[in-house]
Amino acid sequence: MTWASIDLNADLGEGFGRWRLTDDDELLSVVTSANVACGFHAGDAATMRRVCERAAERGVRVGAQVSYRDLAGFGRRAMDVPPAELAAEVAYQIGALEVFARAAGTRVSYVKPHGALYNRVVHDAEQAGAVVEGVLLAGDRLPVLGLPGSRFLETAERAGLPVVTEAFADRAYTDEGTLVPRGADGAVVTDADAVVARSVGLATDGAVTALSGRRIAVRARSLCLHGDTPGAVELARRVRAALEAKGARVEAFT
Amino acid sequence: MTWASIDLNADLGEGFGRWRLTDDDELLSVVTSANVACGFHAGDAATMRRVCERAAERGVRVGAQVSYRDLAGFGRRAMDVPPAELAAEVAYQIGALEVFARAAGTRVSYVKPHGALYNRVVHDAEQAGAVVEGVLLAGDRLPVLGLPGSRFLETAERAGLPVVTEAFADRAYTDEGTLVPRGADGAVVTDADAVVARSVGLATDGAVTALSGRRIAVRARSLCLHGDTPGAVELARRVRAALEAKGARVEAFT
Amino acid sequence: MTWASIDLNADLGEGFGRWRLTDDDELLSVVTSANVACGFHAGDAATMRRVCERAAERGVRVGAQVSYRDLAGFGRRAMDVPPAELAAEVAYQIGALEVFARAAGTRVSYVKPHGALYNRVVHDAEQAGAVVEGVLLAGDRLPVLGLPGSRFLETAERAGLPVVTEAFADRAYTDEGTLVPRGADGAVVTDADAVVARSVGLATDGAVTALSGRRIAVRARSLCLHGDTPGAVELARRVRAALEAKGARVEAFT
Amino acid sequence: MTWASIDLNADLGEGFGRWRLTDDDELLSVVTSANVACGFHAGDAATMRRVCERAAERGVRVGAQVSYRDLAGFGRRAMDVPPAELAAEVAYQIGALEVFARAAGTRVSYVKPHGALYNRVVHDAEQAGAVVEGVLLAGDRLPVLGLPGSRFLETAERAGLPVVTEAFADRAYTDEGTLVPRGADGAVVTDADAVVARSVGLATDGAVTALSGRRIAVRARSLCLHGDTPGAVELARRVRAALEAKGARVEAFT
Repeated sequence: MTWASIDLNADLGEGFGRWRLTDDDELLSVVTSANVACGFHAGDAATMRRVCERAAERGVRVGAQVSYRDLAGFGRRAMDVPPAELAAEVAYQIGALEVFARAAGTRVSYVKPHGALYNRVVHDAEQAGAVVEGVLLAGDRLPVLGLPGSRFLETAERAGLPVVTEAFADRAYTDEGTLVPRGADGAVVTDADAVVARSVGLATDGAVTALSGRRIAVRARSLCLHGDTPGAVELARRVRAALEAKGARVEAFT
Repeated sequence: MTWASIDLNADLGEGFGRWRLTDDDELLSVVTSANVACGFHAGDAATMRRVCERAAERGVRVGAQVSYRDLAGFGRRAMDVPPAELAAEVAYQIGALEVFARAAGTRVSYVKPHGALYNRVVHDAEQAGAVVEGVLLAGDRLPVLGLPGSRFLETAERAGLPVVTEAFADRAYTDEGTLVPRGADGAVVTDADAVVARSVGLATDGAVTALSGRRIAVRARSLCLHGDTPGAVELARRVRAALEAKGARVEAFT
Repeated sequence: MTWASIDLNADLGEGFGRWRLTDDDELLSVVTSANVACGFHAGDAATMRRVCERAAERGVRVGAQVSYRDLAGFGRRAMDVPPAELAAEVAYQIGALEVFARAAGTRVSYVKPHGALYNRVVHDAEQAGAVVEGVLLAGDRLPVLGLPGSRFLETAERAGLPVVTEAFADRAYTDEGTLVPRGADGAVVTDADAVVARSVGLATDGAVTALSGRRIAVRARSLCLHGDTPGAVELARRVRAALEAKGARVEAFT
Repeated sequence: MTWASIDLNADLGEGFGRWRLTDDDELLSVVTSANVACGFHAGDAATMRRVCERAAERGVRVGAQVSYRDLAGFGRRAMDVPPAELAAEVAYQIGALEVFARAAGTRVSYVKPHGALYNRVVHDAEQAGAVVEGVLLAGDRLPVLGLPGSRFLETAERAGLPVVTEAFADRAYTDEGTLVPRGADGAVVTDADAVVARSVGLATDGAVTALSGRRIAVRARSLCLHGDTPGAVELARRVRAALEAKGARVEAFT
């Protein structure tokens, strides 16, 4: 039996000026892909530079975590941004990050929408198209990271972009393989042992136990780890250790 | 006798969202170099994209007009930004613009500081160094545009960046060849005929009449035209026509 | 026969820093109520101060034009702002404007949502409730201005706030008395004579011809005039003159 | 012998949206005056509301901590803001906070500049005058909090505003009673026991040991405590306990 390789991604650089949120240095010792905030929901320029340097030193892949322009709401409030504006704003953020990635000797090698934009492009074809247009504008046909079955990945694929599916070990799934909406009972898995076990299942079996108790297939090339809550880094370490103990190859997607 | 060639630069894309300031399309029919606002004092992403497309269509060179982060003050208020932050912010802006330049089939080919930052780096070695560091971070050793004799150009030259000197036909000069500070009597030349005549003198003689009445040498490879006042575009056209009538080659610096 | 009195309101102070949009001084000579931008979609503090001073001099009523926090989108992009945040942001804006109103010898005497927020609270009970909560937080039980039949006015009325209905002479109406959505054919009335005639009908008959050709009743205590397009001020003047010629009392609501 | 009463002030509400900085609830159990951030360097509207409510519940006085408009720099970067703009921005912030103070059953009862603005108005007469003008615009002749001997307090006093002097137990003083600039050797007192002892000396003797070793008089009606560093709340508690143990009345200035 051969184990699939699995990528671990997390959001980094999510402070702004005086404020810090994520323990970037610690997370960079765990993940293989760093979703770097690009200044629209978080991420000042000096932080972007530092995170790119650290990521490059450790061989962690740098991705652009693009967002609505919404510092006050941390990008968590859906916005009806006209597609032409949204496409340009996505490209703007990728370009800004690319400077720091190159200066650090690496490159922006994927794009992942953040927060409310991430959720919106699961269903909203217009905004999904705008994000894809923004990625195309930025050139290099960068891979995009998103939910399997989302409008975003469908649109990206049709446009010829490589797509990378991801799963969440700390979120409950429906029988159809979609995420149970936050707010619903049991939507978030808080037990650390369960998160570790689900991570291993997702990475090695491509399956997870849905909220109903049914075992369902979830094809994910990357697992999303969270870094902005107490204990998050420790949990991320445990997930990685468990994956490696089970023989999974933890490595960036290619 | 051979006439030197002269570049004409102006600030473009200085609106933000709903607000417009410069008549970008008209200015692009006059200038050879477009200083495009990059989002920190003005310049939303959709405008940056559009200006780059139009500039590329007309063969106008695209430059990054980098600024303090100050939309409320239009970048006209000096700020004590720590050098590491300033360098990163300069690089961020260049990178963001580069995306749109490349998408339009051209490149960012120079950098010019805006407003209060422009004035500050004439004398402030620390901030001059930070802007130069930002340009270096962005790679490609881009030429920088500035005042002859400024700390900024000195620092850039020492760092191995090409430097391009510019002059202002609508500003009074001291006998030492520096600008008479705004606010002083006679600091701004408002008579359109005088501006045209001074433009021709600067471009073809490398000289201008100082406020004292003395004729002084001003070595400038580029003339800065203004586009944000009533009649500005018409005046810019007249300057260009007069230069061409005198046999000056109006063309981007190389 | 007695004519109803009619209020004329318009958005003012919608510049930001270097940018201007509305001709505030001209509009203040026409309207009886000034919807002053409070800094979230437009409106820097110095402009707010100046508009309040001018309005007070001319006896024009000052209202708070509250918005989503969205300078880049001019408040025209709907946002899923959580109600507690939205209520606090509405109160914040009212308080900031109140300082300048008082300093000018007047008071903020009503509240009108702007742009996407205005449209959202027509139907969205949650955000309508949040805006009402913000008005209540700001104290003084200020009247609110909005569309007849909107969730916003219903919610405000239930909360004990005075409500003021408004109509748009330059927008087409359905037979049910609601606005034909922008973007639909014929949604905007662009003919100046028609706008003037519809203004008179709304003010003196309480009726307007719907898009279908039917004559329908529209009860409006205020007419909204627009000030941000070429010719807008001239049209506003014509509307006021026609209303006065027909014997309507043009005066602020009480 | 009678002990003077002493006020304890600290900066509160210095988060923004998703980001937190100060432990507001803990600090409110120690201080007698809360310098509440008003949205320009920190402080979203919902946080301002909450801090005002908590402060009112505990009988802690609410003050407006006014700042340059600089979220990215946390208000720590001096800015050459024209006086008319600065005055209006100060008034805007006070007005915004006043809404939440009133809603909580209290009032904004003093004004303290933050960060770079605080330092600037020690010496800069123009900006000091602008801040005072802003306070006057906001009405109610609010007391201002600042450094003894500063231009700010002088200007405020001439304008008829009550002035409240403050001292810093964790900063070194020159023989002239001014603060040793940050960055100079020994500028900051980091030893907790020393800070406590200096607090007691300042409150009960009106004196502190200068960097030179000389004992100098420092007349301060308020001590500024810091809340944004690890251990800050614990140190603040110790200071208050020591003051009370020595018989000082810890109470808000009147």
